[in-house]
Amino acid sequence: MPEPSLHLGPAGPFDTAEREAVYRAIFTRRDVRSQFLSRPIPDETLTRILTAAHHAPSVGFMQPWNFIVIRGTETKARIKTAFSAANIEAADLFGPERRPLYSTLKLEGILEAPINLCITCDRTRGGPVVLGRTHNFDTDIYSTVCAVQNLWLAARAEGIGVGWVSIFSDEEIGGILGLPDHVKPVAYLCLGFVDQLFQEPELAVRGWRQRININELIFEDRWGNAAARAEP
Amino acid sequence: MPEPSLHLGPAGPFDTAEREAVYRAIFTRRDVRSQFLSRPIPDETLTRILTAAHHAPSVGFMQPWNFIVIRGTETKARIKTAFSAANIEAADLFGPERRPLYSTLKLEGILEAPINLCITCDRTRGGPVVLGRTHNFDTDIYSTVCAVQNLWLAARAEGIGVGWVSIFSDEEIGGILGLPDHVKPVAYLCLGFVDQLFQEPELAVRGWRQRININELIFEDRWGNAAARAEP
Repeated sequence: MPEPSLHLGPAGPFDTAEREAVYRAIFTRRDVRSQFLSRPIPDETLTRILTAAHHAPSVGFMQPWNFIVIRGTETKARIKTAFSAANIEAADLFGPERRPLYSTLKLEGILEAPINLCITCDRTRGGPVVLGRTHNFDTDIYSTVCAVQNLWLAARAEGIGVGWVSIFSDEEIGGILGLPDHVKPVAYLCLGFVDQLFQEPELAVRGWRQRININELIFEDRWGNAAARAEP
Repeated sequence: MPEPSLHLGPAGPFDTAEREAVYRAIFTRRDVRSQFLSRPIPDETLTRILTAAHHAPSVGFMQPWNFIVIRGTETKARIKTAFSAANIEAADLFGPERRPLYSTLKLEGILEAPINLCITCDRTRGGPVVLGRTHNFDTDIYSTVCAVQNLWLAARAEGIGVGWVSIFSDEEIGGILGLPDHVKPVAYLCLGFVDQLFQEPELAVRGWRQRININELIFEDRWGNAAARAEP
């Protein structure tokens, strides 16, 4: 093995324009349900954002993810049916105060988005003992979510909107996509080019819930120990 | 409520330089254990990367995260002790082939990093029924991991290295940080400026595990249906 330190390279801060671009992706990323354009996503663009996902951190370099790219209308239709049934169950869980607004919300764009993408977690990859996963078995799922977020931000930079659909059971998605038992569907995503996005999260715009002041969320040294901080 | 469509704004692709900056953050981000500089992180820089975390997507706009900023040497020392005990347990789980290499790996920088940061998930935030969480109760944890990844990429752009330490039990961390029962520690992170990073993941450089060819990870329409794709 070559001396590991030979693999170190210089890595200071980005210049201002680069840094602002990273923050722009973070702050303007949205969960998209209605703004998808029908224009197809070129293969090379899809490959770039999947490669971004594949460069997420993973526990023990486990890389537990797979990417199922769904273009078929029949598969999309089955997924949509699973969503619709689950969403009726979901609406019933809300009380009379929230249910009317809930029922007006569009919570997916499965059929409109040119590509659906299921990002899965193979819980057996890397064998029974994985470095860093010895004390929390779910860190493989955490890694998979990091891949989702990488893809989401790369997609924003490409002009592609992403919507995460979570209202169905893992079992139902697994059945439709033929997942083996050891593979868990972590994220079901709808992808398509957009030329407009909400400037604030859609759930805030529609009056469902507002952003929390970040200063309420920061503690010093232990839970509940509020920090004296300047406004961000 | 104002007409929601008034909140839509133009949102095409980034220009080439901006897009490259986003990919640069994604591809050069590393899990840092040994390269931390002792130079303090200014409050305004910390606030920027915490704000990036706070702008992660969250199920039902639940924003279930809190940020516990740990600077105290006593708290860090207790965390380090918990890690060290757990890491001995971890080493014992590897067979004779892997254990010698495992034991040479430095897997945390708790004491060297100027700031430790625990990102938690309040599982009760937003009440008992949360939009989008009705069929998978763990989506709040997924949201919290999205916040971790936003912070990690923003930190890269700021020249700050981040290392995720996962080798201890949630209960132990919760005890040290005084977390209530309904709050789960999702990520324990070490943060500090760096001027060097590994150009490939450190576990690859050190011969632990190599990157998987992305083409093996992509399926079309259903599990196992390999796609005919060009090399990325």
